[in-house]
This record gives sequence, structure tokens and C-alpha cells, in this order.
Amino acid sequence: MTAYTPPIADMRFVLDELAHLDEIAALPGYEEATPELVESILGEAGKLASEVWAPLNQSGDHEGSVFENGVVRTPKGFPDAYARYVEGGWGSLPFDPAHGGQGLPWAIAAATQEMWHGANLSLALSPLLTQGAVELLSAHGSEAQKALYLAKMISGEWTGTMNLTEPQAGSDVGALKTRAEPAGDHYLITGQKIYITWGEHDCAENIVHMVLARTPGAPAGTRGISLFIVPKYLVKPDGSLGERNDLRCVSLEGKLGIHASPTCVMAYGDAGGAKGWLVGEENAGMACMFTMMNSARLSVGIQGLAVAERAYQAALAFAKERVQSRPIDGSDRGPVPIIRHPDVRRMLMTMKATIEAMRALAYTTVAAQDKAKRHPDADIRARNQARVDLLTPVVKGWLTDCGCELASIGVQVHGGMGFVEETGAAQFYRDVRITPIYEGTNGIQGLDLLTRKLLRDDGAAMTALQTEMGVTLGELESLPGADMAPIREALADGVDQLSTASDWLLELGETDLPRAAAGASPYLRLLGTVTGGWLLARGAAAAQRYLTEGGEKAGAREGFLTAKIQTARFYADNILPGAAAEAAAVNRGGESTLALDEDLF
Amino acid sequence: MTAYTPPIADMRFVLDELAHLDEIAALPGYEEATPELVESILGEAGKLASEVWAPLNQSGDHEGSVFENGVVRTPKGFPDAYARYVEGGWGSLPFDPAHGGQGLPWAIAAATQEMWHGANLSLALSPLLTQGAVELLSAHGSEAQKALYLAKMISGEWTGTMNLTEPQAGSDVGALKTRAEPAGDHYLITGQKIYITWGEHDCAENIVHMVLARTPGAPAGTRGISLFIVPKYLVKPDGSLGERNDLRCVSLEGKLGIHASPTCVMAYGDAGGAKGWLVGEENAGMACMFTMMNSARLSVGIQGLAVAERAYQAALAFAKERVQSRPIDGSDRGPVPIIRHPDVRRMLMTMKATIEAMRALAYTTVAAQDKAKRHPDADIRARNQARVDLLTPVVKGWLTDCGCELASIGVQVHGGMGFVEETGAAQFYRDVRITPIYEGTNGIQGLDLLTRKLLRDDGAAMTALQTEMGVTLGELESLPGADMAPIREALADGVDQLSTASDWLLELGETDLPRAAAGASPYLRLLGTVTGGWLLARGAAAAQRYLTEGGEKAGAREGFLTAKIQTARFYADNILPGAAAEAAAVNRGGESTLALDEDLF
Repeated sequence: MTAYTPPIADMRFVLDELAHLDEIAALPGYEEATPELVESILGEAGKLASEVWAPLNQSGDHEGSVFENGVVRTPKGFPDAYARYVEGGWGSLPFDPAHGGQGLPWAIAAATQEMWHGANLSLALSPLLTQGAVELLSAHGSEAQKALYLAKMISGEWTGTMNLTEPQAGSDVGALKTRAEPAGDHYLITGQKIYITWGEHDCAENIVHMVLARTPGAPAGTRGISLFIVPKYLVKPDGSLGERNDLRCVSLEGKLGIHASPTCVMAYGDAGGAKGWLVGEENAGMACMFTMMNSARLSVGIQGLAVAERAYQAALAFAKERVQSRPIDGSDRGPVPIIRHPDVRRMLMTMKATIEAMRALAYTTVAAQDKAKRHPDADIRARNQARVDLLTPVVKGWLTDCGCELASIGVQVHGGMGFVEETGAAQFYRDVRITPIYEGTNGIQGLDLLTRKLLRDDGAAMTALQTEMGVTLGELESLPGADMAPIREALADGVDQLSTASDWLLELGETDLPRAAAGASPYLRLLGTVTGGWLLARGAAAAQRYLTEGGEKAGAREGFLTAKIQTARFYADNILPGAAAEAAAVNRGGESTLALDEDLF
Repeated sequence: MTAYTPPIADMRFVLDELAHLDEIAALPGYEEATPELVESILGEAGKLASEVWAPLNQSGDHEGSVFENGVVRTPKGFPDAYARYVEGGWGSLPFDPAHGGQGLPWAIAAATQEMWHGANLSLALSPLLTQGAVELLSAHGSEAQKALYLAKMISGEWTGTMNLTEPQAGSDVGALKTRAEPAGDHYLITGQKIYITWGEHDCAENIVHMVLARTPGAPAGTRGISLFIVPKYLVKPDGSLGERNDLRCVSLEGKLGIHASPTCVMAYGDAGGAKGWLVGEENAGMACMFTMMNSARLSVGIQGLAVAERAYQAALAFAKERVQSRPIDGSDRGPVPIIRHPDVRRMLMTMKATIEAMRALAYTTVAAQDKAKRHPDADIRARNQARVDLLTPVVKGWLTDCGCELASIGVQVHGGMGFVEETGAAQFYRDVRITPIYEGTNGIQGLDLLTRKLLRDDGAAMTALQTEMGVTLGELESLPGADMAPIREALADGVDQLSTASDWLLELGETDLPRAAAGASPYLRLLGTVTGGWLLARGAAAAQRYLTEGGEKAGAREGFLTAKIQTARFYADNILPGAAAEAAAVNRGGESTLALDEDLF
């Protein structure tokens, strides 16, 4: 079994140096987010994650959630571990104090989220879905609905789910068929939903399903979809639980990973119709869902990061322990820990550097969201919102693709033992594989980036990002240290590649959209690679400044700061050059992607 | 459940146009390999693979091999499916007619191997190991040993295993501790071996273990290892089976994939010593093993190819069937099969193009082995042997890395259904993950390529390869067709990258071996990318020639030949640009890979 130690120093470095938590704490309403409070929150969350949640990760995988006689039994220890999370108030961190939330910045919540997902991806999925439902109700629910549901969901006593997918309606949500018939103050919901994460379980007293359905006569496609609250147990006006609603779990999916997370097929209305209450207006369900989806996409990106981090910790521990073969530099006559073999180091450095880039991208994007919500200056709010919109598909797509690749490297570091389930490395590889798929496949993310982000504002948000990267390039020029020049050069190349590919897609978007779309995924990857490299370069610059200035902030952290520079350098030398290949696929790849006749495949 | 259709037309194209089977059939001893016979062999093997082996792939995964009361029970249908293989004489294809083999070229056997591995990786592992043992005995066994064992092993009535690994001796084989005490005409073997593939099972009447062990007083490390035949049942002089030998399976590993393949912990000599017979000289065991390993490495590479091909077939069938969303080109108002979405096409083209490059590399390398063995001209034999030596680690490493990546893409094409085990896509992703690990991890392959191949002959074999690539570049220049120029340019870039990186490693190998070693894996990848692109370009050139000449060879195959060109073009546009990134990691990556203090990880 592998341990999990939340990487708090790395998290703090990103929050402080790249996400500028001090600026966020200066925003109205976020004043409580002092460095001391942040330290204490990360420490306490880290304890629960590492001591209670993490040890259940492998046993949860072995046992899985089980469906018997209409009831889902989660693995041993899960209900208790979840109860500890509720007791600690961990779900309430970023939410409105009016409904029992703690009103803290999302940037801090993001760091705790990384811990939950790193400790136990299956268990952490329940709060992730609940968070989405809370945001949805907060933004679109009536005051009465908020009063009835929000406090219990924010506390985590009730969990939430998202019911979009049906067998014929996956990425194409507009194809869904579930019906909602008006019946007085409520509707009667009938239909089947699939892939409902934590759709039924034994960890909370009620489950509040957010269900997409069609009302009679609704237009076809996404314009005719409405959103309903459909609780497992009906909620009385005083907030107490009433009778069971007409909905049930029909079966669980047998999955590659996240075995402990019950993925349910849900049946609504077998006995005439499940009672549901409309959220917002009829036919405005998709808009409501988008509120939730953007934040959920950031969280899924953080899952990719979190599992990669844990896979790295396991691989690193193994590489320091496992003794095998003499070192190639002849420094020892006997066998040494495998971390001393260059190829194993290469694998570990690839994991470490990419993970740090991923974390920087995720946390800074979430921090931009905090500013977009709370900054007093409307321009700054708008600018940050544009940044969040642009980078959300990248956080989701790039972090989860990298998550899979890094978990695979984690297996490889273990050699034969990586293929044996006992070690745990294989579970990370299996579990993380869902993240490029759900909450919008990464192909959908690429298309979102291309059409709704790059093309829609005619490249404005992208240009703003590249301008900031240019500022960093200037800063790097003035810094001492042998690593700064190569980092700068690699980044400058990457920014050029990004700029050329962006221009090309902007042009192609007007003349040949399918061909542009064929390059959307490589473009997303390119943006991830370069933005990750940019953030690591900024981190390296900050570290270099502290080291140059000396004093308190450097002192005891000299090793840590040096590692930041060397890690950024590794990324510049080994990962950033991928930008050229990714840009080539964008610039040249589309035509040949579309050339072959369908019959000739 | 997914079907499997051996891609015989693609296989034939590689065999005929790139591996030049006609030249091989002209070699002494290979005269029987007429085009008609090849067609018939591939057809018949394809039937057994697709009709008998493939349908057991998923049920075999579900059931797994089970260990009970000292006996291993393989999944339902496995013993019978294996018996059909033995009856068909499929194991005997490339072996010496003197011992019941059919004496056919390895290039043909490679194509059938792809079928067995594509149909059922778990089951095909047994013949793979048997083949290794046969080669080993053929090369190093005494005449008496050959007479006693070979015929039964070549027919497949008895299977073989390779016993190298021990808990403390994985990649470092020299650390093994199993002992062999002389006892008259034989030795008594005592020790434990792990990861013994098909070490115990119910598909054959005897299992012939090839076991590495140390004799008393043997030198430390790999120079003190001897190889022994240790049969499960002792073999009487007349070839009939005698009593049970003192060896047993202790347990099976619980693995990420290939659940139907029993991976055994084997105990030798619990009751005093298992009887073993020395193969070759004492302390020459490693040299013997290398005979087997090179060919096994080619076969493992073919496994990566085979699973990728099957994953592609499953993804393609799904993409043609699954209807979801309107097309971005506006050509339909309703939802269409997802193959019409550009990103899905990109994924399918990536699989198709990479698989064709992988197949071309594998088959041509095996064909070079045929020439190295049989060509009457010693120079040509030596040149081909050098090519085989150079490319064997690439076939093993690049094909298995790509196999994993492509199986992951196969999951992604399926969307949510890819994560559900029922679909089968997830099994390919799990199964193929072993291939970069066993038979020498891909890190070991990189090191082998760098030290034993590139550096040992001072780049001679590499230069010869690049010279051939240069010839292709010249040929491409003179061909008509809009695709030839971009294919040529991309290949020329790739060859430049390969050449620069090779020169750099040759230099670094003399001055800073650890730093060179840090670039060994990216170098292996680079060589795979470029050689794959070169072979596809050669295939495209052949196709273009047929199309230009017209006539019989083009005629009915116009679509097929056009697809070859377009696929090579896709590879040139989308995959070959990766060579620059891989070369950068070789040229610049080493220093920063090794920079970080071990404590700072």
C-alpha cells in the first residue's frame, strides 16, 4: 500500500508566488484568508487526507461499491471517512456564509481538493459532484430552493449528483429523452440516466439529483432542456425528510478503475413519475448546467494532477528503496537504489516537472476565478474571467491527459512490480483513465477551446496571455543564474509556436472550420505545454530572486528554491520542445487528418 | 465483445513491398515460401486466430487463470484453443525441419505471431515463451538434449518457460541466487523464481523450464550464471514422461492485465532439489539467454503492435456505429457516426498510421534476421545482423510504448463506454501495459541501444541505416503526386534530427556516459519515430509507383494504395514532427535530468 503526503510546500509555493494569494486575500470578502489560516487549513486537510482517506484507497479498489437488493454499499470505512469530512466542514470551504459556507477563496479550496483526490479519487468524487450541485443551485435556484437544500448540501450531509447522460446522449447532451410532465408545483420525471456518479450510496442521508429533462412541447436539442431538483427523499417544508421519491439505482457499471465510486444507472419514474422541481426557467437547463460544468472541469483537471502526484510519490519511494544494478558512472561497485540510474531519474523528473506545471496552471486559473468574482474593478474582473474561460478546457484536458501519461510512467518506474496490483501503481493508472473522458471528453475540451474561446473573442484572451508571457521573458533576461537563459530561450520558442498556431487557427476558423477542428486537440496540448512552461519559468524567476537577495525567504529554503529552478530547467529542456511538434500538428496536420475516405479506414 | 480480423492486406503489403519476401524466398532453404503458400498460411492462421482464439480473449480476462491446490486452471476454452494451435502445427513454422519444424522464414512467422497476440495476448504468451526455449536449445543444447526435447516443444505438445527473475534480481539478472549442485549427470536446483509466465498450467502434458542458477563457486554477477533444463515431468530416454520433478507453482500474481496468463511464483527444490540438466557450459548461461532474449524482444514488440491493431479495430467499429452530434462541416442536420467528427478522425488516423509504421518496422527487422541467417553472401549476412541488432531494442521499446499509447486512444474513442469493462477497450489498455516492462524494461532497451548498439560499433550500423534513408529521400524526389513532397520534407527533417542526436551521443559516450544514458530513451523513441516514418514513406513511394504505372497491380487496389499514401502523409504531418522534440531531449535533456540532488526530489 502506498502512502500519500500532501505536497504542502509545493502547493504553498504556487499559491504564494504564482497565484498571489496575498492579492486574493485583499479582495472584499476574502479578508480571512490570512497566511496563517491557509497554513492551518492545508495542514488539517492534509491530516484527514493522508491519515483517513488515503489508507482506504486500495482497500476501496479491491472491495468496490456493491449493488444488492436496490442498495449500494460502499467499501468498508467509506461512510466513516466521509462523515469525518462532513464534520470537518471541508465541503463548505468556498461557499456562501449565508448558507453555512466559509466564504474562503476557491484557490485554497483547490489545494484541499487536490488532497482529497490524491488521497482517494473514488471517495472524493462525491464531494466533487455535490459542489457542482451547490454551485448550480446557488446561481439558479429560487430563494425557497436555496433555503431548503443549500445548507445541508454545503455541509455535505446531503450529497448531490448530475444527471445528464443517457444511452443515446453522451457528448451530445441535446439528444436526451427523459421527460418532465407538469403536475402542480412540481413535475413528474420519467426516464433513464447512465454514468451517474455516486447516484446511490450509503454515505449520506439524502441524495439531491440534478436532472436534465424535457417538458412537453420543448424544442429539440439543447434549447429544449430543463433542469430539475429530484431528491431521493422528498424534503418537507421544515427541511426534514419525507417519503422516498420514485427513483432508483438499477445497476452499477463494471469499470476499469474508481471501483469504489458507484457509477449508477438510474431509473426515474418507474411508478408513475419522480417528483422534480424546476430550477430556473423551462428550457434554460443547459445554461444552468454550464455554471456547474466549468467549475467541475477545473476540479476534474485537479484530479489528473492529484493522481499524478500520488503516482509520483509512490514511484519516488520505490526508486529510493529498490536496489538494482551498478551505477553507470562507476561511483559504486555494487547495486544502488534505482533512482541513481539516469533513465529512472528521467522518468521521475518528467513526473515532477510536469506535475509542478500542472499544479501551477490549475491553481492560477482558480485564482483568476476568485478575482473574476470578487475584484472591485470591473475591467480586472472581465480580464480574469476571460482568462478562466480560456484556460478551463486546458486545465481539464491537459492535466488529465498528462495525469494518464504520468501514472503510466509511475507504473514503469516500478518495473514488474508496477504490473502487480498489490503495489498500487496500477490502480492510479486505472483510476486516472476516467478523467480525460468524463465532464466532457478531452476532444470536447479541444473544440470548446477552439470555438468558444479562441474564435469567439477573435483571439483577444489568447493575445492577453501571450503578452503576459512576453513580460516574463523580459524579466528572465535580467536575472542571474546559468539556468535562466536556457529557460528563457525554450519559453520564447514555445511562445512563438503558440502564437503562430493561434494565428493560423484564427484564419482557418473563418475559412475551413473542420480543418481547424482537426487541430483542436494538439492546440490544447500546445497551450498546456507552453503555459505550464511559462508558469514554471515564473516560479524559477521568483526562486532565483530569493536566492539572489538572500535573507529570510531564501535561508532555510535554499534547496527547495534551487529545485524549483532545476525543475523548470528540466521542463524547458525536455518538455517544452514538444511545443514545436504540437504546433506542427496544428499547422500542418488538419488536411491529412481529414483526407482519407471513410471506407478506406 | 470485440471481434478481431487479422489485417492480412496490410500485412501482405509490408511483407511484399517493404520486407521483400520475394528476396527472402530466394534464400537457400526458404524456397517453399511462395506467395501462394504465404497467402494460405495467413488465411488459415487468421481463421484460427479470429474464430477460436479471439472470442476467448474477454472471457479469459474475466475468469483469469486460477491457482487451487497446487494446480493452475486456465480459463474455459483455453486448453482446447491451444490444442487447435498444436494440431495446426502453428508453433513449428520457423523451426528446423530436422526436429519437426517447417523451416519457413521468420518474417512469415512474425505475421502469424501478430495474429495470435492480437487475438488473445494471454494465450499467445505460452507459445512465445516456448519459442524462446526452442531457440535456446537449438543454439546451445547438446544433440541428446535436442533429441529429447525439441520435437515436442516445436510441436507445442510441451511448452517452455524462462526462469530469470528473482525478488532481488529483476533487471539486474546477475543478482540471482538460485543454486545448482552437481549430482552425477545432472544438477539439483534450489531456489525461488518470480514472474514466470505460464510457469504452470493445464494446456500441455509437460512444461520445460529453462532456469538460470549458480553452480558452487561460480563468480559473482552475470559471469557466474548457468542455464539448466528443468522439466516439470522428467523425460525418460525414450521420450516418455517419468516422475514429477521437485518444482512447483507457489502462487499466481494478481495483475493489472493478461489475467488469463498464469504469472507464477515457482519454487525449485523444496524436497531436496529439482533435477536440472546443464545447457552449454557452466557460467555461460547469460550468453545462452541472450540468444533467446533478442528474438523474444522482437516478439514482445509485435505484441505491442498486435494489441494496438485490435484496439484500433474496436475503436474504428465503434466510431462507425456510434451516432452522436451534428457534423461541424454542416453536411448533416442530424447526428452522425462519430468517425465524421475531426477529433475522432485524428485519433483513428493516429492509431492507423502509427500501427502501420510499427508493423513495417517489426516485419522488416525480422526479415533482416532471415537474411542474416540465410543469405549466401557473408557481407550481406553481417550487414543484416547489424541492422537486426540495432533495431531490436527499437522494435521492443518503441512498439510497446506506442502500443500503450494507442490502446489509451482506443479507450478515448469509446468515450464513457471505454471505461466500462464490458466494451473490451479497457482490457487492451490493461493487457498491453505489461509489454514495456517484461523482456527487459524499455529503459533497458534504451541503454542497450545506446551502449551495445550505437557506441559499440561507433555508429556504423546507424550510419548505414541513415544512408538507406537518404536513398529513399532521393527516390521520393522523382515521384509524382502532391503528397510526396511534404512526406519527403518531413522525413528529411527527421533524418537530420536523428543524425545530429546520434553524433551527439557518440561524442557524449566518450566523455559523459551518464548524461548520454539520460537521453537513451528519448533517442530510442526518436529512432522509432524516424524509422517508422521512413518505412511508411517507402510504402507510399511503392504505392505511388503502382498508381502511376497503372495496370494490374494498381487496378482493384486503387483505394488501398491511395490510403497508404494518405496514411504516410498523415504520419509525416502529425507524428514525424515529434522527432525534433525527441532529439531536443537527447541533445539538451541530459544535464538537467541529472542535476537535481537526490534529497531534493
